[in-house]
Amino acid sequence: MTEGEVRTRVRYSETDQMGIVYHANYFLYFEMGRTEYMRSRGHAYSDLERQGMYLAVVEATCRHKASARYDDAIIIRTRVEGITRATVKFYYRVFKEEGEVLLAEGTTTLACVTAEGRPRRLPREVADALAT
Amino acid sequence: MTEGEVRTRVRYSETDQMGIVYHANYFLYFEMGRTEYMRSRGHAYSDLERQGMYLAVVEATCRHKASARYDDAIIIRTRVEGITRATVKFYYRVFKEEGEVLLAEGTTTLACVTAEGRPRRLPREVADALAT
Amino acid sequence: MTEGEVRTRVRYSETDQMGIVYHANYFLYFEMGRTEYMRSRGHAYSDLERQGMYLAVVEATCRHKASARYDDAIIIRTRVEGITRATVKFYYRVFKEEGEVLLAEGTTTLACVTAEGRPRRLPREVADALAT
Amino acid sequence: MTEGEVRTRVRYSETDQMGIVYHANYFLYFEMGRTEYMRSRGHAYSDLERQGMYLAVVEATCRHKASARYDDAIIIRTRVEGITRATVKFYYRVFKEEGEVLLAEGTTTLACVTAEGRPRRLPREVADALAT
Repeated sequence: MTEGEVRTRVRYSETDQMGIVYHANYFLYFEMGRTEYMRSRGHAYSDLERQGMYLAVVEATCRHKASARYDDAIIIRTRVEGITRATVKFYYRVFKEEGEVLLAEGTTTLACVTAEGRPRRLPREVADALAT
Repeated sequence: MTEGEVRTRVRYSETDQMGIVYHANYFLYFEMGRTEYMRSRGHAYSDLERQGMYLAVVEATCRHKASARYDDAIIIRTRVEGITRATVKFYYRVFKEEGEVLLAEGTTTLACVTAEGRPRRLPREVADALAT
Repeated sequence: MTEGEVRTRVRYSETDQMGIVYHANYFLYFEMGRTEYMRSRGHAYSDLERQGMYLAVVEATCRHKASARYDDAIIIRTRVEGITRATVKFYYRVFKEEGEVLLAEGTTTLACVTAEGRPRRLPREVADALAT
Repeated sequence: MTEGEVRTRVRYSETDQMGIVYHANYFLYFEMGRTEYMRSRGHAYSDLERQGMYLAVVEATCRHKASARYDDAIIIRTRVEGITRATVKFYYRVFKEEGEVLLAEGTTTLACVTAEGRPRRLPREVADALAT
């Protein structure tokens, strides 16, 4: 399975009084990674929602390895770790651009649901595209 | 016009690397104040949305007077500054509980809209309740 | 080990366009739980930082069971799952107050570090107090 | 005075249950605009902090003209509206890239302070660079 990549810079609002990125904000970086990964596979998540298909996070994990600071240029690398009939598991790594230092790695497992939150099957063409 | 009051504590996530509450988070405190003010007037905002009436922020202002820090107990005081056929303007003050130091004051003007975002009239009973 | 409890309400800013609490915001609820748990054990985290002792999140996990919505009253229950010489692992459950529905459960592992981010030992009296 | 420009995409976490960007998040976009503006003038804000010079927001305003949605490509345009001995006022406009629709415009006034939060003069070379 191939990998997607997106770059951004740490915002001041994302830091906390320890002077580093607040830990939960890595999940926002993961989400940026997921968005770009899906777009690059031809299934922008915004299109899926317009078709009534929602992906809801059912499990999220993150391990923090090093700290990022305000204005650091960072790289988010995303791949798909596993797909079932109704779930997709993404794996992410966030790097500091300078020196490619690994800052954090983690996963989110998403379940395919209807607008009302009921489980539904992930369409085969979406599953196939994401798994490639 | 009377005043509503709600209390909370500064979260770690709300601070930034200056060691104080990140300025835009005061608008989240304002929102807490607005929510409690409306509930206390008998028109919980969640009920209004269920009836298809949305209040969208069209203007927001905040003046910062002093800094709040992690775990500070704060008080948000809210009142209505003005009501027109389709807008409500709220006025907020945020105090540090210890010594009742004024931290920030500001306003938000909200327009009454439909679920599709089109302007609509604020129902008279809501306007009357909020203005009291 | 005993449990701590804190209550809050879902803010509008914490929802996303799915109409539910954005998944990463549960880590902010966890942090509220941790803050109150530590205060109730006689070691407010703000005091620890003033003494030069920082707790940095090194691992975080969350499993989502049900959705919370704007203005829902929620309860955060916190306990300590394990303590080593230099780390504390907290376990959290977030409930919807109405019906005590479990919304999410998760953990964060925190490492004790100096202001410069270097590992240091967790003082015995803090470890003892947290473990009780 | 010239203008700075930076582009980004709306994150899912930035939306709320109205299906649009939560109003206070425009201040985060403004902050991105300010960061890039200062960098482009040769005075990255992260460098200023390292020299002990902090810019604290003392006033913020935003007028909302249209709504942005998840994944919308947006442009933030920033310029300096005024400079005094110890303050800088920035003016921002946020556009949707598609059709260059104006989404919001606003200002932030920042005061130059020391690490302890005491007012200090804005160094002339910084003032000159920002005003150009």
